[in-house]
Amino acid sequence: MKAEKPDNWTTGQPLKFDPNGLITTVVQDANTKEVLMVAWMNAEALQKTLESGETWFWSRSRQELWHKGGTSGNVQKVVEIRYDCDGDTLLALVEPAGPACHTGANSCFYRKLENV
Amino acid sequence: MKAEKPDNWTTGQPLKFDPNGLITTVVQDANTKEVLMVAWMNAEALQKTLESGETWFWSRSRQELWHKGGTSGNVQKVVEIRYDCDGDTLLALVEPAGPACHTGANSCFYRKLENV
Repeated sequence: MKAEKPDNWTTGQPLKFDPNGLITTVVQDANTKEVLMVAWMNAEALQKTLESGETWFWSRSRQELWHKGGTSGNVQKVVEIRYDCDGDTLLALVEPAGPACHTGANSCFYRKLENV
Repeated sequence: MKAEKPDNWTTGQPLKFDPNGLITTVVQDANTKEVLMVAWMNAEALQKTLESGETWFWSRSRQELWHKGGTSGNVQKVVEIRYDCDGDTLLALVEPAGPACHTGANSCFYRKLENV
């Protein structure tokens, strides 16, 4: 299923979705600036994010739309969405209601490469 | 060309490269916490990053290894590399010598979606 591009961000906001119709999205805590997670949106997920003010993604493993926090309650209220110079990546600044990671960690990036 | 996985990060650090041999990498300023850019590394770029202490990427458009700042001088000194819960995304915390974006902007995410 492929959603039509919503009118409200096509004009003058040249976003490029990849061949699978997805755009990489970095989610950052608007207050602490911690990078919480990276996920993928399709046009419909972006539209739902814009309409609801909470993050929606496309789950590549489950092949379905995914309302972040819809089950856990840990929704992410969108403060701002930015996009990069070549329009193929989004940066969502959010206020999270709880931990971003399914492990319970605040950020999915809770481990570091050991030799750096 | 596909580099062998460097020994020093394969043990106990389960990174997953995509079918093209790439891993999404978010670059964040270690001091200001600003998200600077998103790019892709292959195993060789990661190895060069670890060995040199500066970021290297794989350019998908040019299909070649790319030393960030090699031409402009705006290298990124790596402070720490983190990886996410499912091991398919890296977060590089860096000290940048100059603007990350080829436009001269400090961050590639210098524009925001207008209706958010």
